[in-house]
Amino acid sequence: MKILLTIEYKGTNFAGWQIQPKKRTIQGEIQSSLSLLFGEKIEIYGSGRTDSGVHAMGQTAHFEVASSLFNKKFSKNSQKDSFSQFVIALNSNLPDDIKILKAKKVASHFHARYDVKEKVYLYKMQINTNKTSPLLNELVGICKCTLDIEKMREGSKHLIGKHDFTSFSSSNTEVKDFVRTINYIKIKKESGIVTFEISGNGFLYNMVRIIVGTLVQVGICKIKPKNIKEILEAKDRTKAGKTAQACGLYLKKVRY
Amino acid sequence: MKILLTIEYKGTNFAGWQIQPKKRTIQGEIQSSLSLLFGEKIEIYGSGRTDSGVHAMGQTAHFEVASSLFNKKFSKNSQKDSFSQFVIALNSNLPDDIKILKAKKVASHFHARYDVKEKVYLYKMQINTNKTSPLLNELVGICKCTLDIEKMREGSKHLIGKHDFTSFSSSNTEVKDFVRTINYIKIKKESGIVTFEISGNGFLYNMVRIIVGTLVQVGICKIKPKNIKEILEAKDRTKAGKTAQACGLYLKKVRY
Repeated sequence: MKILLTIEYKGTNFAGWQIQPKKRTIQGEIQSSLSLLFGEKIEIYGSGRTDSGVHAMGQTAHFEVASSLFNKKFSKNSQKDSFSQFVIALNSNLPDDIKILKAKKVASHFHARYDVKEKVYLYKMQINTNKTSPLLNELVGICKCTLDIEKMREGSKHLIGKHDFTSFSSSNTEVKDFVRTINYIKIKKESGIVTFEISGNGFLYNMVRIIVGTLVQVGICKIKPKNIKEILEAKDRTKAGKTAQACGLYLKKVRY
Repeated sequence: MKILLTIEYKGTNFAGWQIQPKKRTIQGEIQSSLSLLFGEKIEIYGSGRTDSGVHAMGQTAHFEVASSLFNKKFSKNSQKDSFSQFVIALNSNLPDDIKILKAKKVASHFHARYDVKEKVYLYKMQINTNKTSPLLNELVGICKCTLDIEKMREGSKHLIGKHDFTSFSSSNTEVKDFVRTINYIKIKKESGIVTFEISGNGFLYNMVRIIVGTLVQVGICKIKPKNIKEILEAKDRTKAGKTAQACGLYLKKVRY
């Protein structure tokens, strides 16, 4: 039986999603908890990696377990359905900074990474301040200046659609195909926080953070909105802006 | 010269507001930073204490410093006014979990505690879940059940106005007068978070947290809205509900 998990986590105290020896990782924590719960080694497959410090409101991952084992553990005689029982049991094994939001059965050919249709990221940035609000520490990026929202919206339009995003990808990647499709970029400002919501069919390494870092350059009037088009066409990482801090980034949703 | 500070902090990693030997406190951190900044010992006087784990969006505190010393440090020749310069300098000395939001000159007879006209607290509670969202950890209280907002609103009405709040005060207090005035209690629900906003002319020890703990009893239908009146009239702490967790409480505003 294949099960898909929807997962929330605060990335601050993890060395990222992917399991690594002697490091605290989200994948590692969930695999340990699942293995403990079922009494056998279980591997999970995420929709993709997130870096250290990056958060998730809706990361997804699948794993396999024998139906007989699952059904033995999570009885149908309870008031709650077996998946709700499983979620509660798994959460009680997991640390405070990881929470399973949902679990559901998926088809045997389903793959959490290869079947992704859409991913939505949020980037939150506190603006016009020298110091992050203590209540938002590790939960937002920071920009000392104010940002011109209209100009950033204008600039962001050049990124919508199917493009080669080489300029917006970190060079330390093994990927060969840099073409991705961005569905939309929404930018709003509320109580001193600018939120970028970016939807695409997939993202290159650091792509969201480089897009945000480049739009910030537009927002502080260092470059013009139309320069975004030139940066995209240059297919050259050095033309784009800085990679925005990890702590402002959230994987909001994965759609299949 | 007397200066009033408006302060935001995340209370999680402090032993509360009040300075104590060998403990990390908010008052202690601010006093150390001010003393370092001015090169002489400076004491601050807060609007009141907050417990370990309790947060503030708008705590206030005053201190005194010689005008000559202040003016020497924060020149009027800068583009920014001297108080903005002072806030930036003080914030750069302070840890990430304390931020000075504002500083302004006040009259020599002003006192941050004795001149309070109104205090507003928020209490945030995540409801209907077994585990706090990782992204809200240490920032909300938790309730496993759902809460009946209308019933809590009905119950809260009995607390509005001038009353003896003995039933809603922790016994380990040296206060003799238990009469306080509550101006309003607003309760709202949004995305699984119930927020209580409580305004009063002053609050007894643990008063907001006991009010919230008791209203939760109404919200889960363990007691009736009208029972709040009886609890108030009993002047007996044992009649009220549990003290809600510290981590959900925020000192939002102090008005003079």
